Amino acid sequence: MTPEEERELKDLLVRWRRDIHRFPESGWCEFRTTAKIAEELHRLGYSLHMGEKMVHRDFMYGAPEKKRIEWHRHRAQAQGAHPEWLGMLQECTGVTGVLNTGRPGPVRAFRFDMDAVHVSESESHDHKPFREGFASENSGLMHACGHDFHVALGIGLAHLACRHRNELDGIIKLVFQPAEEGVRGGRAVAESGILDDVDLFFAFHVGLGYGLGTLVPGVNNFLSTTKFDAFFKGRGAHAAVSPQEGSNALLASITAIQNLYALLQHGGGVVRLNVGTLRAGEGRNVIPPSAEFEAECRGETEEINRQVYQRAREIIEHAAAMHGVASWVRVMGESINASSDAPLVAILREAGQESSWFTPLDAAIQGFGGSEDVTWLMREVQKRGGLGCYGIFGTDTAAGHHADTFDADEAVLLPGAKLLFSLVRKTGEAWSAF
Amino acid sequence: MTPEEERELKDLLVRWRRDIHRFPESGWCEFRTTAKIAEELHRLGYSLHMGEKMVHRDFMYGAPEKKRIEWHRHRAQAQGAHPEWLGMLQECTGVTGVLNTGRPGPVRAFRFDMDAVHVSESESHDHKPFREGFASENSGLMHACGHDFHVALGIGLAHLACRHRNELDGIIKLVFQPAEEGVRGGRAVAESGILDDVDLFFAFHVGLGYGLGTLVPGVNNFLSTTKFDAFFKGRGAHAAVSPQEGSNALLASITAIQNLYALLQHGGGVVRLNVGTLRAGEGRNVIPPSAEFEAECRGETEEINRQVYQRAREIIEHAAAMHGVASWVRVMGESINASSDAPLVAILREAGQESSWFTPLDAAIQGFGGSEDVTWLMREVQKRGGLGCYGIFGTDTAAGHHADTFDADEAVLLPGAKLLFSLVRKTGEAWSAF
Amino acid sequence: MTPEEERELKDLLVRWRRDIHRFPESGWCEFRTTAKIAEELHRLGYSLHMGEKMVHRDFMYGAPEKKRIEWHRHRAQAQGAHPEWLGMLQECTGVTGVLNTGRPGPVRAFRFDMDAVHVSESESHDHKPFREGFASENSGLMHACGHDFHVALGIGLAHLACRHRNELDGIIKLVFQPAEEGVRGGRAVAESGILDDVDLFFAFHVGLGYGLGTLVPGVNNFLSTTKFDAFFKGRGAHAAVSPQEGSNALLASITAIQNLYALLQHGGGVVRLNVGTLRAGEGRNVIPPSAEFEAECRGETEEINRQVYQRAREIIEHAAAMHGVASWVRVMGESINASSDAPLVAILREAGQESSWFTPLDAAIQGFGGSEDVTWLMREVQKRGGLGCYGIFGTDTAAGHHADTFDADEAVLLPGAKLLFSLVRKTGEAWSAF
Amino acid sequence: MTPEEERELKDLLVRWRRDIHRFPESGWCEFRTTAKIAEELHRLGYSLHMGEKMVHRDFMYGAPEKKRIEWHRHRAQAQGAHPEWLGMLQECTGVTGVLNTGRPGPVRAFRFDMDAVHVSESESHDHKPFREGFASENSGLMHACGHDFHVALGIGLAHLACRHRNELDGIIKLVFQPAEEGVRGGRAVAESGILDDVDLFFAFHVGLGYGLGTLVPGVNNFLSTTKFDAFFKGRGAHAAVSPQEGSNALLASITAIQNLYALLQHGGGVVRLNVGTLRAGEGRNVIPPSAEFEAECRGETEEINRQVYQRAREIIEHAAAMHGVASWVRVMGESINASSDAPLVAILREAGQESSWFTPLDAAIQGFGGSEDVTWLMREVQKRGGLGCYGIFGTDTAAGHHADTFDADEAVLLPGAKLLFSLVRKTGEAWSAF
Repeated sequence: MTPEEERELKDLLVRWRRDIHRFPESGWCEFRTTAKIAEELHRLGYSLHMGEKMVHRDFMYGAPEKKRIEWHRHRAQAQGAHPEWLGMLQECTGVTGVLNTGRPGPVRAFRFDMDAVHVSESESHDHKPFREGFASENSGLMHACGHDFHVALGIGLAHLACRHRNELDGIIKLVFQPAEEGVRGGRAVAESGILDDVDLFFAFHVGLGYGLGTLVPGVNNFLSTTKFDAFFKGRGAHAAVSPQEGSNALLASITAIQNLYALLQHGGGVVRLNVGTLRAGEGRNVIPPSAEFEAECRGETEEINRQVYQRAREIIEHAAAMHGVASWVRVMGESINASSDAPLVAILREAGQESSWFTPLDAAIQGFGGSEDVTWLMREVQKRGGLGCYGIFGTDTAAGHHADTFDADEAVLLPGAKLLFSLVRKTGEAWSAF
Repeated sequence: MTPEEERELKDLLVRWRRDIHRFPESGWCEFRTTAKIAEELHRLGYSLHMGEKMVHRDFMYGAPEKKRIEWHRHRAQAQGAHPEWLGMLQECTGVTGVLNTGRPGPVRAFRFDMDAVHVSESESHDHKPFREGFASENSGLMHACGHDFHVALGIGLAHLACRHRNELDGIIKLVFQPAEEGVRGGRAVAESGILDDVDLFFAFHVGLGYGLGTLVPGVNNFLSTTKFDAFFKGRGAHAAVSPQEGSNALLASITAIQNLYALLQHGGGVVRLNVGTLRAGEGRNVIPPSAEFEAECRGETEEINRQVYQRAREIIEHAAAMHGVASWVRVMGESINASSDAPLVAILREAGQESSWFTPLDAAIQGFGGSEDVTWLMREVQKRGGLGCYGIFGTDTAAGHHADTFDADEAVLLPGAKLLFSLVRKTGEAWSAF
Repeated sequence: MTPEEERELKDLLVRWRRDIHRFPESGWCEFRTTAKIAEELHRLGYSLHMGEKMVHRDFMYGAPEKKRIEWHRHRAQAQGAHPEWLGMLQECTGVTGVLNTGRPGPVRAFRFDMDAVHVSESESHDHKPFREGFASENSGLMHACGHDFHVALGIGLAHLACRHRNELDGIIKLVFQPAEEGVRGGRAVAESGILDDVDLFFAFHVGLGYGLGTLVPGVNNFLSTTKFDAFFKGRGAHAAVSPQEGSNALLASITAIQNLYALLQHGGGVVRLNVGTLRAGEGRNVIPPSAEFEAECRGETEEINRQVYQRAREIIEHAAAMHGVASWVRVMGESINASSDAPLVAILREAGQESSWFTPLDAAIQGFGGSEDVTWLMREVQKRGGLGCYGIFGTDTAAGHHADTFDADEAVLLPGAKLLFSLVRKTGEAWSAF
Repeated sequence: MTPEEERELKDLLVRWRRDIHRFPESGWCEFRTTAKIAEELHRLGYSLHMGEKMVHRDFMYGAPEKKRIEWHRHRAQAQGAHPEWLGMLQECTGVTGVLNTGRPGPVRAFRFDMDAVHVSESESHDHKPFREGFASENSGLMHACGHDFHVALGIGLAHLACRHRNELDGIIKLVFQPAEEGVRGGRAVAESGILDDVDLFFAFHVGLGYGLGTLVPGVNNFLSTTKFDAFFKGRGAHAAVSPQEGSNALLASITAIQNLYALLQHGGGVVRLNVGTLRAGEGRNVIPPSAEFEAECRGETEEINRQVYQRAREIIEHAAAMHGVASWVRVMGESINASSDAPLVAILREAGQESSWFTPLDAAIQGFGGSEDVTWLMREVQKRGGLGCYGIFGTDTAAGHHADTFDADEAVLLPGAKLLFSLVRKTGEAWSAF
């Protein structure tokens, strides 16, 4: 690339990052984001897959009600999404762009997540997005995890691959996935069939505690997790006059919660469990007729996570029955275990070394104590004989992920996009060796 | 009274009841209600006491913030309250009208409460207020306890006493008390000095399970109660990556709640305790940094209630400290024990018998398992040597108190107002005997 | 009676009281006590009913195992019980002596309980039984409730009735009931048929906080109660290596206990609940495979007690199931509600007044916050049309009931026995009036 | 060794193992065991260190009361311990035998633990020790962990070193440690000074799931642990008459227990916590005045364990204070983290390979999910610049450790003892290389 081309690409990346940052959208509601991306990919000549072609309806964990979907579509339009593209999306966000070189070679997929988190962005002058005028315009939502960077990187890769399409072989799929937060969207994409022909799969995250320039060439052993909501429905009663006529949903819920903590020990590996929120009752002098909580469990293996979740359901069921209270549980997100395949880790590491910018770690890291629904996509590719790899582009951040002053150094964007593109080249060259 | 006068008075009572019903206001925010009453009492020639003259600032349990007060004042004006009267109220609701006959005789006070409850009124056609167009226009608020009837009865008594003022002796005080729900307002009125010269005190409630025409000539042994909110402030942390860095406010709060139930046994009499609502946490995967609950305790005696409340505070404090969580408790309402004095019970019973309409019970009833902040007022009068009495005007109701389909038979209004007036007469006549 | 006769009777009463005190026996194991009483009643000419004739096997709540029964029979013999009488008892304690005058008249039953409590008697020189050499010789057991007095009173009545048999009419039944402590024996006696022909039933307790000379002529509204043991059987596991393989019976039991306290509020009246003991687990580093607790619930009415017990069972069942733990509950004692009949209260009061010694209260008292299995016997008589009454012979005590320094003033014995006898006379005279 | 010598040594080992098995003794009470060993070591010419020379009084975690010590000393004598040796032990078990070759060379220590566990040995004919007549004669105690094997191996090494003393150099210390179960004795030995001059330290366990012939040449990362007892002292009261006068120690204890489970998540590594036993209360109808439980916590690092234990104490303290109950905690055992040093692992592995009998694993294993108080001894040596190693002699077992049918294959004894001796030789030869 000429310096001029580099400058242009860099501008493009920053422009996209800031535009996405300004209009954050929550999971399953990324209508503006999707429409913008789809429009751009279409312009560049990619063929598109949207809706049920890349999202399986049966696995849209925690998808909002129709009315809310509609509300978000309207906002997307008000904030600049093209009505035509919105129309094509129907009720489902996410888009996959496919570039077929027509030449034999591997089918590679790159995944980019694009939803924001429920954080109200800082309005401090120390906070660059606010100071420079691209802070969130959607109250209560913020790109505080860096998915705005991911979208920009995806667009950057789209441009580079398009420009060099005659030099490439095989197929390139750019998967813009909805609803990564709460590990909600991954499974629906994995089950959709969009990855059925994929040989090599890559996904990336920016930051995660690694400084500018560091390249983590692979992550192994994400924690498996299940996100679930529990609901309790009892019966109210006057707390002084006839307390015995009530069925106390609050007591049922807190009995469940306290006993969930008995599940935290497992000889087979790490277990995590959290009840993050609880809402119960209606009035001070009424036996609480209702309660609900948001929880999650995690396990070092899927089997551990499965066991813990199963036991959690039993605990909830009996804690409710104990108080004559009805209960039910709804899965709101789920992710599994997956690790990066050594050949792709090696290629990624090599690509990092060859770049003039990244310093790769020596090897893949062992998890990071968290979970990612990209594991569904990696597993889907791996179970069909393909290979997968999850890397991290280090970049300096102004605060931890999900903080309201989170911001990342945009200097990572250009080298990041170039590195992604180099993976396309290198995997083509190495294809016979896989 | 002539039949014509009776018809007019009945119309007045119904008109007032329905007007108040249509514009329900919550405790400490009864600006429209107060302004309307004040205007009417003034018109009738009563001298008025408002603001700090009848509400002691130090005991305004659970009073809302200034901003919300202001909001309610504006709504009151929008709904017809006269700006001049609103102006005189400043930030405080409640009004007392005084009629001084100039003749020697007892000082009698009648108390009428006037706040609504947080219930969304039914929009069913079976529900008369909705069907006939006087249902609540203030979303989420409803006169579902009957205080609209109480206001109307107070206005009725004001009219009758005014009309017959030349036949009466002594002084008549009509105390329109704010914030009875949650037993918040009683103490502030009692401590204000407004009752300092009162010899005889009456208060009434409509309904409470007694059918149309029944008169309960006295209530004894209300439960003492303390309403309190508990707050817990811990520290959030990523639930999977660094759970040990959090201080779990949710766990602190539920530990407190479960242990509160250990306080429910007392050899000295009835204890009641309820945690009615609980709100905790911020996000599914964050150690909950905050929690708060609304609770109440009650006791057959003040001593029992005091002991239970004291123990509750200790439990809350240690449940929080156990988890490295800060906690504090705020009293949101409080009422004490009081009983009706036999001489007034006898007079009330006699007045009922003399009316052509009421059928009085033989004697005062023993509590009804509930609490009333009128006890502060009765006690204030009694401790200065006066007498107090709390009666019930039976009336058929469409549903239990606080239900969204609550409605009461307006047939009780006219005989009720007349009975109140007969008490003025009879207490004057009997005054030398007290 | 001549002063000489009085002196002899007094000596007899004191001798019996102290002999019984010296050899206390626990419920269902009163072999020596029963054999001694049976021998004496037989000697006086009473016909006897023992074993299944007065104890229904199906309701022997909390009866010990055969091996322990045998152990107690051996001790009884070693402590002076006649082998022949022990032989007649077989495995069941309790004896009823019947005196049939052959003349028409009422069938009266008097009930005397005779078991001791699990308290180790004081060995302080301030404690009279120890100082005077009649303290318990059976380690861990003590007549700390006064049943030794009851036995002596029963023997005293037996002597007086025997001596005056020719002056009496109707039938006199002296029912020496086993296992009153823990309300275990009453129902078995009531269901045995021994009371089927009884017209008038009396029972008494000494002390209970009433001083020497006071006579309580009736007790109403005992609390209904159920005594129950709960058992939890889980699965042990190494607490560090494979905690997930255990089923934690300790956690199941404490979850049950904490939730039992949610049952303590009832608009219908007093509820009481206590978990008095808990034993769980086997070793520090083993997931606790077992737990058991001893509990009781009480209610102001049988219905309340029944509801609370039923709910307690549900709580236990689900607390166990929640942890994959088996559970079961065993009823260890049970008593119901009963009140004294006015005609007998009147006669008892009159008898007290006529005595030169007792000062009767004006009326029956309302419960005393406790329970008594005599209620089964009262109810049995009442439901067949008979009358029942439970009285208290006040006497000064050195300490509260069940304290290890409990002792009562023997001065109550002679007037007590004479009062009982006067009831036989008076009920005969009044018989036509019932 | 000649075959004859081998046979004799084998017989000696089996004889010792079975003798120790027959007379199991609990921690701090191994008087017979210590006396027998001391006698034998003395006979072989070892100089001995006993009492405070090898056990620091301040760290005798969970040592029994004097009276119980005395009782055990008497039993030891009755079961064949020589009174003279018992006399030398005074109140403290454990003995260290020292063989000084007089030649320069390393000081090596070998540690053997010798206490039994609280298990009642099986009396099934399938259980070899019972069938062959060397089952436990001490009711409720059993060598169910294999420490009888360890003692025999120690004696075997003593014999071999003694026989070959002229061929050896440096110093050999055989440390027979008391009270390993419950990790109680290790620290007291480590702090005694007995290891101050030690260069190389070895300890071994038989079995632990490894089959006959397997040699584990090193163990790393034991879990740090603290064993503690918690005590709660409240106030009893009649559960129905005056429950409010009680301070419920049972409720305090179970509140503590439930909240302890909130400590089980730590981003820094594994946490374990168990409350193994709980005893509370005195009688069914008495508010429980007392409770106590036995617990343990563990952590992947000492820091984690320390944090968890500290938080556990806070939870206990506040759970008690919450109910007006006094509480205190007593440390009953403690162990830390330690790992085997690579040079010794290599030597052990080599020794295993050179033996004709063992098959060593390739490398040290990562912990086994458990704890060992040998870590105090390893750490003591390591912190002075020495090296330590913990190995496992695989042997087939009839059941898991601590089961009442535990038995191990004695075939491990002879090759085990020879391997130990070869370590003496090899460490001498390699000494200059360390």
